[in-house]
Amino acid sequence: MMKLPESALICEVGPRDGFQYETKWIPTERKLAVIQRLLEAGVRRIQITSFVHPKWVPQMADAEEICRHLPQRDDVIFSGLALNQKGVERAHAAGLRYIDLSIATHDEHSLANANMTVAEAVRQAEAMVRLAHHYDMQPQLGLQTVFGYRKPGDTPLARVRELARRFVDLGLESFSLADTTGMAHPLRIQEYVQAVQEEIGDTPLVLHLHDTRGLGLANVLAALQCGVRRFDTSVGGLGGCPFIPGATGNIATEDTVYLLEAMGVRTGIDYHKVAELALELETFLGKLLPSRQARLLARQRDLASQAHTA
Amino acid sequence: MMKLPESALICEVGPRDGFQYETKWIPTERKLAVIQRLLEAGVRRIQITSFVHPKWVPQMADAEEICRHLPQRDDVIFSGLALNQKGVERAHAAGLRYIDLSIATHDEHSLANANMTVAEAVRQAEAMVRLAHHYDMQPQLGLQTVFGYRKPGDTPLARVRELARRFVDLGLESFSLADTTGMAHPLRIQEYVQAVQEEIGDTPLVLHLHDTRGLGLANVLAALQCGVRRFDTSVGGLGGCPFIPGATGNIATEDTVYLLEAMGVRTGIDYHKVAELALELETFLGKLLPSRQARLLARQRDLASQAHTA
Repeated sequence: MMKLPESALICEVGPRDGFQYETKWIPTERKLAVIQRLLEAGVRRIQITSFVHPKWVPQMADAEEICRHLPQRDDVIFSGLALNQKGVERAHAAGLRYIDLSIATHDEHSLANANMTVAEAVRQAEAMVRLAHHYDMQPQLGLQTVFGYRKPGDTPLARVRELARRFVDLGLESFSLADTTGMAHPLRIQEYVQAVQEEIGDTPLVLHLHDTRGLGLANVLAALQCGVRRFDTSVGGLGGCPFIPGATGNIATEDTVYLLEAMGVRTGIDYHKVAELALELETFLGKLLPSRQARLLARQRDLASQAHTA
Repeated sequence: MMKLPESALICEVGPRDGFQYETKWIPTERKLAVIQRLLEAGVRRIQITSFVHPKWVPQMADAEEICRHLPQRDDVIFSGLALNQKGVERAHAAGLRYIDLSIATHDEHSLANANMTVAEAVRQAEAMVRLAHHYDMQPQLGLQTVFGYRKPGDTPLARVRELARRFVDLGLESFSLADTTGMAHPLRIQEYVQAVQEEIGDTPLVLHLHDTRGLGLANVLAALQCGVRRFDTSVGGLGGCPFIPGATGNIATEDTVYLLEAMGVRTGIDYHKVAELALELETFLGKLLPSRQARLLARQRDLASQAHTA
């Protein structure tokens, strides 16, 4: 029988990776209500916003206001994403103690998204890590498209290893591998994870998976078997491509928690409450989300209401 | 690194388990065209129909006509589902050489679906296996709701083992475990599979998984690690509950094949062709199916068409 960890830490990224693709403005109060509901469901780490210029991501224009109204909770980690030093400054000024940094691993991707080469992005991220330390903030550094950019497996493992070692040597709270394009599969997860674990030692490894090809939870299973205990997820499976709504978001928090808890890997999260929140978000956003637990809950409610009417 | 088999056999069940829930009549020529397209995609085993009374499943009323027009292919296995001896007689008369039998494992389920207890269903299925042998047909026997009926894990493993041994001793082409309710998780898959493997020896084990809770492909991965090499799947993820279209079908053929081929487990199937077929079925049925590869293909086409228009 496969050996799995006893517990896992879920980082909810819906308020950032999910909401950022929504073109409909989500009022700040609603964003805060979502965060509150996630806490009530037992989530203890949330990436709440992104400190990017509102010209690029209008949905994140209320980053500071979100931070001002966060509940005071010693048992919860709230983090924000920053893409440059200005973002780190803003996060610090807003009172956040955890900062998430993220860099591309392909020049084409880096130039398109950040207008700089990977080498330039690395130098900038190093300065951001030092700035975070200066402010006594806990930095996470993530690499994008680790399991494929243009096609599955086109990101050299040697590049991933080198970047992992380089940043972990600077001092990170955690190190994250992102399957931005949903190109990972279980064997590649194991290959890359085991190699990166050799580089980063005791620094916690986080997997940030997208479910573009439906392999998200199979990839979680493969990672668990390597001892990975931290996963980014989003309520409802929010996020991803704006062209086909709901098609390619993060792995859904409620589905991931269901998998983990079913196998005895404790998360402290009530997946049913997260699924209820996902259904409310579907109503607000006016579209279905990819979450299976949300669909199941919706169907159970339909059946109950039919039985009631009959 | 996990050890996986070198190849796997996919049995496409969409024409039976998928179509049977569709209330819109699918013309026989279209069903045959779907079968033809599946063959062109490389599928080599298809459950083409069910020999049930058309009063119960009107969609299967053309079982004999489907059989009459099947392509003559020595390299393909066509099977039909039978729920009683009459069904076996009909399948034999229609010229099928492979017959799939299926019994419930809970009395409540058996009484609701087949109006008999499990003990009665077992005796009937034993007679059906003998009848199949009499006709020189190859029988597969499947157990339903093996990983949970009312709730996950409520099907005693001892009952599953006893039934497995009992039927394998009669002589089966293969033995199937069905997660009818989508309640399996990877650890339970491994527990039940390993126990059943002890009972059935060299008789091939088939897993028939539904993706109700999104764990379908994680369960495939767990089963592969136990050496399971046969899976039932349906094009597009057809099948399941009629209340929320597309919510709880079989694991999708194209998604399963993508997972397997990505990990080097050969299937002989072109998942892209299956995804194209799934999109055509979506258009015909007027609803989205759960397949991720179909969504991805639809999005790629949207983007290509936007680029063309721009």
